[in-house]
Amino acid sequence: MKKKLVLAYSGGLDTSYCVKHLSHDLGYEVHAVSVNTGGFSAEETKKMEEKALLMGASTYKNIDAVQSFYEKVIKYLVFGNVLKNNTYPLSVSAERVVQALEIINYAKSINASFIAHGSTGAGNDQVRFDLIFQVLAPEIEIITPIRDQQLSREAEIAYLQDHGISLNWEKAKYSVNQGLWGTSVGGAETLTSHLPLPEEAYPSQLKETHPKQLKLSFKKGELIAIDDEKGNPVSNISKLQEIASAYAIGRDIHTGDTIIGIKGRVGFEAAAPMVILKAHHALEKHVLTKWQQHHKEQLGNWYGMLLHEGQYLDEVMRNIEAFLEDSQKKVNGDVFVSLYPYRFTIDGIQSGHDLMNASFGSYGEMNKAWTAADAKGFIRLLSNQNKIYQHLNTNS
Amino acid sequence: MKKKLVLAYSGGLDTSYCVKHLSHDLGYEVHAVSVNTGGFSAEETKKMEEKALLMGASTYKNIDAVQSFYEKVIKYLVFGNVLKNNTYPLSVSAERVVQALEIINYAKSINASFIAHGSTGAGNDQVRFDLIFQVLAPEIEIITPIRDQQLSREAEIAYLQDHGISLNWEKAKYSVNQGLWGTSVGGAETLTSHLPLPEEAYPSQLKETHPKQLKLSFKKGELIAIDDEKGNPVSNISKLQEIASAYAIGRDIHTGDTIIGIKGRVGFEAAAPMVILKAHHALEKHVLTKWQQHHKEQLGNWYGMLLHEGQYLDEVMRNIEAFLEDSQKKVNGDVFVSLYPYRFTIDGIQSGHDLMNASFGSYGEMNKAWTAADAKGFIRLLSNQNKIYQHLNTNS
Amino acid sequence: MKKKLVLAYSGGLDTSYCVKHLSHDLGYEVHAVSVNTGGFSAEETKKMEEKALLMGASTYKNIDAVQSFYEKVIKYLVFGNVLKNNTYPLSVSAERVVQALEIINYAKSINASFIAHGSTGAGNDQVRFDLIFQVLAPEIEIITPIRDQQLSREAEIAYLQDHGISLNWEKAKYSVNQGLWGTSVGGAETLTSHLPLPEEAYPSQLKETHPKQLKLSFKKGELIAIDDEKGNPVSNISKLQEIASAYAIGRDIHTGDTIIGIKGRVGFEAAAPMVILKAHHALEKHVLTKWQQHHKEQLGNWYGMLLHEGQYLDEVMRNIEAFLEDSQKKVNGDVFVSLYPYRFTIDGIQSGHDLMNASFGSYGEMNKAWTAADAKGFIRLLSNQNKIYQHLNTNS
Amino acid sequence: MKKKLVLAYSGGLDTSYCVKHLSHDLGYEVHAVSVNTGGFSAEETKKMEEKALLMGASTYKNIDAVQSFYEKVIKYLVFGNVLKNNTYPLSVSAERVVQALEIINYAKSINASFIAHGSTGAGNDQVRFDLIFQVLAPEIEIITPIRDQQLSREAEIAYLQDHGISLNWEKAKYSVNQGLWGTSVGGAETLTSHLPLPEEAYPSQLKETHPKQLKLSFKKGELIAIDDEKGNPVSNISKLQEIASAYAIGRDIHTGDTIIGIKGRVGFEAAAPMVILKAHHALEKHVLTKWQQHHKEQLGNWYGMLLHEGQYLDEVMRNIEAFLEDSQKKVNGDVFVSLYPYRFTIDGIQSGHDLMNASFGSYGEMNKAWTAADAKGFIRLLSNQNKIYQHLNTNS
Repeated sequence: MKKKLVLAYSGGLDTSYCVKHLSHDLGYEVHAVSVNTGGFSAEETKKMEEKALLMGASTYKNIDAVQSFYEKVIKYLVFGNVLKNNTYPLSVSAERVVQALEIINYAKSINASFIAHGSTGAGNDQVRFDLIFQVLAPEIEIITPIRDQQLSREAEIAYLQDHGISLNWEKAKYSVNQGLWGTSVGGAETLTSHLPLPEEAYPSQLKETHPKQLKLSFKKGELIAIDDEKGNPVSNISKLQEIASAYAIGRDIHTGDTIIGIKGRVGFEAAAPMVILKAHHALEKHVLTKWQQHHKEQLGNWYGMLLHEGQYLDEVMRNIEAFLEDSQKKVNGDVFVSLYPYRFTIDGIQSGHDLMNASFGSYGEMNKAWTAADAKGFIRLLSNQNKIYQHLNTNS
Repeated sequence: MKKKLVLAYSGGLDTSYCVKHLSHDLGYEVHAVSVNTGGFSAEETKKMEEKALLMGASTYKNIDAVQSFYEKVIKYLVFGNVLKNNTYPLSVSAERVVQALEIINYAKSINASFIAHGSTGAGNDQVRFDLIFQVLAPEIEIITPIRDQQLSREAEIAYLQDHGISLNWEKAKYSVNQGLWGTSVGGAETLTSHLPLPEEAYPSQLKETHPKQLKLSFKKGELIAIDDEKGNPVSNISKLQEIASAYAIGRDIHTGDTIIGIKGRVGFEAAAPMVILKAHHALEKHVLTKWQQHHKEQLGNWYGMLLHEGQYLDEVMRNIEAFLEDSQKKVNGDVFVSLYPYRFTIDGIQSGHDLMNASFGSYGEMNKAWTAADAKGFIRLLSNQNKIYQHLNTNS
Repeated sequence: MKKKLVLAYSGGLDTSYCVKHLSHDLGYEVHAVSVNTGGFSAEETKKMEEKALLMGASTYKNIDAVQSFYEKVIKYLVFGNVLKNNTYPLSVSAERVVQALEIINYAKSINASFIAHGSTGAGNDQVRFDLIFQVLAPEIEIITPIRDQQLSREAEIAYLQDHGISLNWEKAKYSVNQGLWGTSVGGAETLTSHLPLPEEAYPSQLKETHPKQLKLSFKKGELIAIDDEKGNPVSNISKLQEIASAYAIGRDIHTGDTIIGIKGRVGFEAAAPMVILKAHHALEKHVLTKWQQHHKEQLGNWYGMLLHEGQYLDEVMRNIEAFLEDSQKKVNGDVFVSLYPYRFTIDGIQSGHDLMNASFGSYGEMNKAWTAADAKGFIRLLSNQNKIYQHLNTNS
Repeated sequence: MKKKLVLAYSGGLDTSYCVKHLSHDLGYEVHAVSVNTGGFSAEETKKMEEKALLMGASTYKNIDAVQSFYEKVIKYLVFGNVLKNNTYPLSVSAERVVQALEIINYAKSINASFIAHGSTGAGNDQVRFDLIFQVLAPEIEIITPIRDQQLSREAEIAYLQDHGISLNWEKAKYSVNQGLWGTSVGGAETLTSHLPLPEEAYPSQLKETHPKQLKLSFKKGELIAIDDEKGNPVSNISKLQEIASAYAIGRDIHTGDTIIGIKGRVGFEAAAPMVILKAHHALEKHVLTKWQQHHKEQLGNWYGMLLHEGQYLDEVMRNIEAFLEDSQKKVNGDVFVSLYPYRFTIDGIQSGHDLMNASFGSYGEMNKAWTAADAKGFIRLLSNQNKIYQHLNTNS
């Protein structure tokens, strides 16, 4: 009986080589699996299936994980306003974690004894896949031909041709990874520290030049409507992506620390994620207390760091999620956004929980809630410690 | 003998009223002082002097504090990449602290027994002024006519007219506070939560539409040259401001927590500060370790929060400055920036301390520094704790 | 009709003076209320009632808040291992918050328009009471005769005598505040920085000299049994207090920052709290991950600080509670403790969730989960960033 | 020519086996090096030398690193009040880092091409040694026979006997690691989660039963005198250790997270470190501001964690040291300590920088610096945010 193996399959050269090599040379029964986190269409899935079977896979399966991607990860990235180093919405890191979870669950469900992925030994993805596979199923052996053999693209193509497979494996000038929470872009420029990506490297080109106003509605921190049209958060993200990407919004390049200790640079385009994160944050500034915002920022950054590093299964992530979820109880309201070519602005918010425009009084004119004498007393006591400190330490 | 009083003077209606009221009604010998933190010209100073003397001030003095503003505060805001709530460069808060320090030092130098300012009882500035005055000179009494009397503008104008002073006190539609580290803008819109400021409210109007590339050079975290033209950081900031403000860059609206517990909303325009902060941060991503960045962010945010709240004299601020200064030892290099109408991009960096493109190897191809087996071992040990956790807790 | 007022009543001279003064001089209808958070017996309540009525109170009521004290505060102090500055279990601060909550709720329930307490203007308690009263019932006016009048004890006694009340108000040498979560002790020594409290100042004197072993059992972080005898957490705390206080355990002196910016020094004795906190912490070291412990410590410290400062009602406290509660899911097991005169030791733990003695392998001998080569690979990648850093920066 | 190798030598069975194996079987020129961080006498060094040469070492050298141990590490552990998980003074972790630094520097100084240590693959020490060796000298190859071969003690003894060496390698019941900053103790009990170490396992037995008072004097955070007798900090630590260890003070068991993700349990005895850390902390509570203490605790904990994990060379450690050093400017004064059998108390402090007993006024009686009205105003403004929050959110 053949040894059952599940392979994380993308349809690219590396994982196609893996199917052939694992099934033909090593005698595995290869079950190719792709996980859709918002990056590909039914048509693309159909093509992947044909290719996987052509390569020798016993079965191919596409797992639709868009909803679970949102529920397990994106939701908390929004709650935490997570931007790695205040820049990157973690488009790829977030996706990989969910893909790894879906694949290992599938492997367990079909009683596979082996699991394979096509990551190299130089990046983050190997860590995310291996970590999650090992933690959830230490009994399943991990096989990684690309990491182990370090073949060149040419060698892989030659191998496939030797085995009768002559497809066109032309390498795109820019490697693009697309999903519900944004698209990453790598190319010759991102291997340098000084070059920006050219306009054409980005997947969405500028199509709209007339400014557009939008109203985004949030309930308990989730995007529930755009311009008063309700929808579930996943479809709202997609819809906003379609609208905003026409303005070529949300592009940047991020240099970050990989899990393996070296620096990596990546371009990205994430129109909907950037608009949602900034809109959500603007709303929170009005409805949360100072210390809620302070701790949310700290925990949100940690959540992003551990997610980026593949540590999604550390129990502290559940504890942080509990905090973040609890913090969203009053994050309800509308945010007004304007889209322009290559940029957007957050124009204002409206909320029944707005701590700013409470009947209580407003900033800028003397508030009925306190008198000038109260304010003086406030400052007098506020200065106590440093007054004593200076008094003691100035001439000593 | 008259009681000597130093007044923080701006030339506006409120502090002009204070001069008259304090000198005429209350019999103080009023020494009007303005502190220039980058906001006004010699011509404006001249006008302030005339007005102060007309109101009854015994003397008027302008203190040039631009350099000390940079040395005491701005430098550390750059080191710490400080943006309050990831939005606001603390343009006004930073300025007020330096103005308070200069004024109290002046008061002590001329042996004044009283010190006055024109802040109301509803905002942050009263706290910053009172706090710093009390801590540094508890023996000097603080006088605050505006806070105490809560007169309307009309009442103040009428009072001045009754005393023979008929100037034109027309109120600008937008109140603007300008300095080296940015300009704040308040108006009818910022008293609401939902309205943005109109184009004309911002001091710098769009003048340039052709994109422009710039090279900013940093040494130990300070901006030492623009396009290879060296200059001291203060003059470099001014120069960059002139270049970048023509693109109407660095505008936004921030809603923040005031020291007195209510929310406040403020518009700002800070072209040079935003470009410098983002450029400096980009350079740091390449030259600092992961944990340096982590702790800098935490401490930078605290520095900004305490500065905003007028707690500049808390000794912890000196300790944080020591950390931040030490972290800048290798923050040397060039940052490439592109300016466009209403936006800018950070295109890349070049540095002899760049941890990314060390000869060591580069991200994306297998690194000579480790093998596939090493990477597997790394991940295996990295997964230990959660592997054990899951093993123990999954079926229990 | 008389104005209805609720007074936080303790039976001491200050609040007794308040009853008389408020009812007789100011014409309030005084409803005296005491809140038992574990500090007094039915007999003492009876005496308080007699005294309150003698002073002129219309009614007296004792609210038993021991259970709500545990549910609202103590539980989270245990979950968070909260010791202010690693020293003080917040015995008094925790209590005051619950007392304030109970009193304001009572005042609202009887439609009182006024609420009074006996705190001075120099300490923390006034802040805790005023804060909670104002936040929960801004419509109820706060009356504070002691803070306002600053009478001496002698003046208060004379006043009462003038009004026909001649009780013995002898001041105890040490002021003691007792409750379920520990007892604070103040005296002449704690007003200095250098003197310790003498043996006799502490409420529990050494009675047992034979060491005693105990087994404390926790479930989801709560103390559910002592030596296999089950009980609810409140009764377990009381029982442990009885056992452990015979060893004169849990005494110390803490110097802390008051809310009003000055330093305060307080002695305390908290046998059960200290034993429980250390036992719970020991158990957590075995069952929680490294990062869970890291974040629990941070959030626990904040929880303690905000509680100490009377900010219990800040919504961030609810968010932190959600985190802490979620973190306790696996904090189940037994902790072995030994009691000795004046000290105790935590001897070990036993838990089905113990991450240390999993079948997985044990520390000290080579683990089956990885090989020597894996360990080398782990360290090789772990050293990457600093290897590059040193390489680049050593000779530059 | 033989290949030059430096071996970290302890005189125990493992590293003795290494000398023989490396020199005899593998043909290395073995230079045995021990690093004294306070753990052994001249006599012991003499014995180590004889043994090393007997095993076949070309040379033996003892490096006295007590002073550098203090300057590089202990000083900052005191400044930061560092106790891992509020328990363990990091006795061993701190030592290993300094030993690794000294050994790699020695290896470089004699142009060795190889460096060896005797750590196993199951613990922290391998990480500390490998990390520091690789970062500082990536060109020197690391050799680890014990980790690679995993021989039993019996096999090692047999090997040595086969090569004519018949020493008595009796294993002590408890493995003890002694140094200036404390002694760790491991045994059968510490391999369980529930057993305490027996009395005899600890190196210092109780010799004194009469209580003793001590005065410890600190200057800029360093221990400069005991009972008014001045000395350098290193000799003061040794002296205090001699005095306090007679009381069998500073014992505990700690369960911590190893760098490789498993839990480890270790007993320790650290009389002087525990007394110094608690005394220093008590002094700081009087002379530092609230926020200084807050940030010191955070950074101190991080410093301890990274040190424990061998990340001493991460540049963030230098930045944290800069913060900690700056925070000690006013940490001057005397601390009064009482020693008793198995325990000690911190009785009080005296300092010219004491923020508590400033002439300013003292806690407990109404302070001249503010009035009752000031205090009310303070609390009124302090309650603003939560007052608004409750107002808005209670009935919504």
